[in-house]
Amino acid sequence: MDIAALRSAHPDHWRRAAAIRALTLDAVAAANSGHSGMPMGMADVATVLASRHMKFDAAAPDWPDRDRFILSAGHGSMLLYALLYLTGSAEITLDEIRNFRQLGSKTAGHPENFLAQGIETTTGPLGQGFANAVGFAIAEESLRARFGPKIVDHHTWVIAGDGCLMEGVSQEALTLAGHLKLSKLVVFFDDNGITIDGPVSLADRTDQMARFAASGWHVQTVDGHDPEAIDAAIRAAKESPLPSMIACKTHIALGSAAQDTAKGHGALTDPQLVADTKAAYGWEHGPFEVPADVKDWWEQVGRRGAEARAAWESRLAALGKGKREEFDRRIAGEAPKKLGGAIRKLKKAAAEAPEKMATRKASETVLAAVNPILPETFGGSADLTGSNNTRTGDLGVFTADDRSGRYLHYGIREHAMAAAMNGMALHGGMRPYGGTFMAFTDYARPAIRLAALMQQPVVFVMTHDSIGLGEDGPTHQPVEHLAIHRATPNTLLFRPADLIETAEAWELALTQGDRPSVLALTRQGVPAVRLKHSAQNLVARGAYVLAEAEAKRQAIVIASGSEVHVALAAKERLEAEGVGTRVVSMPCMELFAEQDESYRRRVLPGGAVRVGVEAGVRQGWDRWLLGERGREAKADFVGMDRFGASAPAEVLFETFGFTGAAVAERVKALL
Amino acid sequence: MDIAALRSAHPDHWRRAAAIRALTLDAVAAANSGHSGMPMGMADVATVLASRHMKFDAAAPDWPDRDRFILSAGHGSMLLYALLYLTGSAEITLDEIRNFRQLGSKTAGHPENFLAQGIETTTGPLGQGFANAVGFAIAEESLRARFGPKIVDHHTWVIAGDGCLMEGVSQEALTLAGHLKLSKLVVFFDDNGITIDGPVSLADRTDQMARFAASGWHVQTVDGHDPEAIDAAIRAAKESPLPSMIACKTHIALGSAAQDTAKGHGALTDPQLVADTKAAYGWEHGPFEVPADVKDWWEQVGRRGAEARAAWESRLAALGKGKREEFDRRIAGEAPKKLGGAIRKLKKAAAEAPEKMATRKASETVLAAVNPILPETFGGSADLTGSNNTRTGDLGVFTADDRSGRYLHYGIREHAMAAAMNGMALHGGMRPYGGTFMAFTDYARPAIRLAALMQQPVVFVMTHDSIGLGEDGPTHQPVEHLAIHRATPNTLLFRPADLIETAEAWELALTQGDRPSVLALTRQGVPAVRLKHSAQNLVARGAYVLAEAEAKRQAIVIASGSEVHVALAAKERLEAEGVGTRVVSMPCMELFAEQDESYRRRVLPGGAVRVGVEAGVRQGWDRWLLGERGREAKADFVGMDRFGASAPAEVLFETFGFTGAAVAERVKALL
Repeated sequence: MDIAALRSAHPDHWRRAAAIRALTLDAVAAANSGHSGMPMGMADVATVLASRHMKFDAAAPDWPDRDRFILSAGHGSMLLYALLYLTGSAEITLDEIRNFRQLGSKTAGHPENFLAQGIETTTGPLGQGFANAVGFAIAEESLRARFGPKIVDHHTWVIAGDGCLMEGVSQEALTLAGHLKLSKLVVFFDDNGITIDGPVSLADRTDQMARFAASGWHVQTVDGHDPEAIDAAIRAAKESPLPSMIACKTHIALGSAAQDTAKGHGALTDPQLVADTKAAYGWEHGPFEVPADVKDWWEQVGRRGAEARAAWESRLAALGKGKREEFDRRIAGEAPKKLGGAIRKLKKAAAEAPEKMATRKASETVLAAVNPILPETFGGSADLTGSNNTRTGDLGVFTADDRSGRYLHYGIREHAMAAAMNGMALHGGMRPYGGTFMAFTDYARPAIRLAALMQQPVVFVMTHDSIGLGEDGPTHQPVEHLAIHRATPNTLLFRPADLIETAEAWELALTQGDRPSVLALTRQGVPAVRLKHSAQNLVARGAYVLAEAEAKRQAIVIASGSEVHVALAAKERLEAEGVGTRVVSMPCMELFAEQDESYRRRVLPGGAVRVGVEAGVRQGWDRWLLGERGREAKADFVGMDRFGASAPAEVLFETFGFTGAAVAERVKALL
Repeated sequence: MDIAALRSAHPDHWRRAAAIRALTLDAVAAANSGHSGMPMGMADVATVLASRHMKFDAAAPDWPDRDRFILSAGHGSMLLYALLYLTGSAEITLDEIRNFRQLGSKTAGHPENFLAQGIETTTGPLGQGFANAVGFAIAEESLRARFGPKIVDHHTWVIAGDGCLMEGVSQEALTLAGHLKLSKLVVFFDDNGITIDGPVSLADRTDQMARFAASGWHVQTVDGHDPEAIDAAIRAAKESPLPSMIACKTHIALGSAAQDTAKGHGALTDPQLVADTKAAYGWEHGPFEVPADVKDWWEQVGRRGAEARAAWESRLAALGKGKREEFDRRIAGEAPKKLGGAIRKLKKAAAEAPEKMATRKASETVLAAVNPILPETFGGSADLTGSNNTRTGDLGVFTADDRSGRYLHYGIREHAMAAAMNGMALHGGMRPYGGTFMAFTDYARPAIRLAALMQQPVVFVMTHDSIGLGEDGPTHQPVEHLAIHRATPNTLLFRPADLIETAEAWELALTQGDRPSVLALTRQGVPAVRLKHSAQNLVARGAYVLAEAEAKRQAIVIASGSEVHVALAAKERLEAEGVGTRVVSMPCMELFAEQDESYRRRVLPGGAVRVGVEAGVRQGWDRWLLGERGREAKADFVGMDRFGASAPAEVLFETFGFTGAAVAERVKALL
């Protein structure tokens, strides 16, 4: 690459972009780790985008109508941090840049959305940002349909690398975006031909342009180091009625000795290489030093949107009171006050007329009460609408032609669904929920984990939550998945036992601010177990005494979801034999763990044997069975220590010991 | 659809294919569940494929050189069962068809490879079969390169539906196959335009032909109900030097009232509908009844390959002794006898010259000793070769032009890598292992779970197994993933502490017959902890006493992997204060759980407090800490109850309490 030619062709542009490159070199050298090559390759694109097209105001990084910039190739985090610092972020200061990748800094190895405004999402696991961006773009369309283009009208810009595009999730994301004609989504493909193992040609020969075009995208190729060509491509992308992909031909680690090599992907820390590269750039400033004129120019870029934002504030103020309050409330992520009343009303009705019902059906019943009063809910399913019971009559379908619908047919794309829901939640103003089978948690795991890490209150509706789904067999029967969600930090797993617990779980899920919820719901009908109305949300305690021992308490049977009624049946048998048995319903271990110790001890006192019952693996249960510090109770667990089998559900429950009689025997064996 | 026209155009073909359709209707009706539409739609393709092209011998369903038939759209399992029954399978009998989806039958809701020969893989989770098939085709090429085309020369045929093609894993699989020019892989796309939620157009507008062509596939469209057109397309596919996709335009639930509808995807059980459909087919036979002439014809199809197989047996017999023994041994899945000696030799050398080493590097050291003596190993990495340390010098790279290499650059395709490895293992003759970062377990979870369910001894090499990876931060730092693998049935998770334990873990992984292994390996260097040579494989016991208490035993510290040396450091401090402390290394909880109780009690006796140390979540540990039945020990755990952070590894270990001093304090707090 002829750097001198680049410099002389666009000297001003060159120095501005070189600031990104130099800061990257300095930060990576100081940290002695990181990824230099991508920011060095994509600095020109980022400079043109930020200075000529992106709508933002560095003084108000939380402006709801700002453009969103998604760094899907998250390892190139210094690109983002440099942009934020240069344009005047109050949070990503020069000190933060100096502390790149150090404990407590806001400049983590990969961008973390919760560390500073302007970091729109957490990326690094490849393809996630791209799929998040589809959710951002859906959120924008949905909110625009609701509040009008004067209030919501912005673009979602993505930088994605070869890694993002090789990950399967990118296919799900791009086909979904193409289908929905998300025209305000623009993806810059950092087409540098290099991955960690070597040239892309080592592992792929895909024509990415043809691939995107095959799913209804507007595609362009551009010299990623020519600012005018980049600008023209962005203008064309904005005009296209389709989502747009711009393949930017770039040189990874531009201008360094590692240019166009796999080495250039990683940390360029050799002092001589850094010095030589800066010399090639004509960058004669010290480490972390940006000349005043360049910094001034970038800060002007950061202020470019101030006027537009002020005008927007006026337009928002001019909105009718109802709409404005709704907008503010939704952006704040607060549930409407009437949610609690609606849930209580539903619970009361359920207590008065208890009926056998699958909890997935119970979930639908709750949604039917909730969706009409929460305009922010946005439902969907990965092609299992009738099985997940996620669609209620009032939602309408969100399509390419109708953005007013609040239900999305995600197609057979569990991963993109989860990642897009993350994007909607991150965008703000939306409460996404989406369904698939619990076993297919696996397909969406990378995004579900990120919902937890990113502190986003997405709701994953996971039906068919055990062998109770029956004949579809072990491929579809989760056994380890409850444990998987429980093992994941900052995640609430709810496994409600009946309609009332399902309503309480939904109320909690819809009022969470900073963590996702997973609802584990049955395919099969289960009897009501909460027969008395309580205004209080008992699921909020995580576990509670559902039925007290009648005879002297000798045993506690703890169960969740579809096994709670089995525990009650066991109790009935045991009491008949004089064995006083308490039944504890434990719909959410995480919330129970958050209760104070005295409550936990009230629910699970010593002096009685304990048996857990759940049609899943034991892992996660021992804390409650054996006692939190050990030496507390003799215990056993009725669960699954193998994969399931294909047979009718009732046959499986009998075979694997999930009956009142079998559980009672296990209790007696401990006495 | 004009069924009468189809019938009269090819009357013989029609009746043969109708047998598949009728058996499907009968089995689904008897089970009152299942998926009728796909077998009814694809019966013509299956009939032409099986009778005119597939190389197999029903009398020898385990013939190593048979063609492989992969039903990726596994919900259409009756298509496969009908084919097996009709062609004369000794296992899939008419009784089994009658017992479709019942407990203990071989005809599970979705095909399960371990239930009967001829079921080549377990499908149902969509896209998996397709990605498995890429592995089957790689195995065929690799074995052909080794043993020659007289011994190995067969096709891999796949039926995939819209669901398979919408799943992201299909993109990873097809781009990998296109890159590798796997010309003997042929995918029939059941292009019926219907998914569970409704028409495909509800969620997708992808031009699948263009998409496959963009990645180097040969593509064709064909009327999926015209036997001659199907035949011609298959012939063209066989001639192409590229992998081939044939989009078969079919009608789901052909000829029924539910044809071309989402309802037709599921179980058609209405007696009137079944009767009307059979009438339209001109099928005048009772339930489960196949007229003798049709059954005879199908059984001839089942015998078509007998002669070819006999000729093949002669060619195999004529192979040189060395090659033949290797072929037989590899097909039997047996490790060579010299493996044990090589591992012992390596262990002895390691004990004599202990050194600080990352266990990922230890793994490379083991592979360097193992790969030259195990020609069946086939390594790879999802674009992290230098980080996963999976490539050894002797392997060579498997490419489109050179099939003799035994190392594959999978690209950034964790999911397809895992699924392709499953396919290689299922094919037989191969011992695949492949690497990525432990946190990216999530990307491959659906396939890793299936390795366990399918009982395949694949080895997943998961490096960077904790916060010890440092600056890349929480997106890359597993905390819940050890628990996830441990929660999965039939899976061995090894977390070795040093080179010797790594060698033992590899020995176990390479000698497993029916379960996968996951190796959790460090990025960071760790000191050797096994300083004395033992010929015995101690990791085989799952946990063992690494260092006995010197003073009177008051505490047991249990640790795995990179925390074992921390446990030893804690012991040193505690002993200095007179607190006798045993250190137990626990590299594999699953194997420890399989030991007899007396061994387990010897390793973890009562009468001492217990502290577990592992840089992951506590889930899974309580059984060993609290005592298997409770009431055994006071216990604590030093681990992670949150996501990690971006900082140098040593800072993180200090921050989160993984130091000898901090662990010693936790022990003392219990005394």
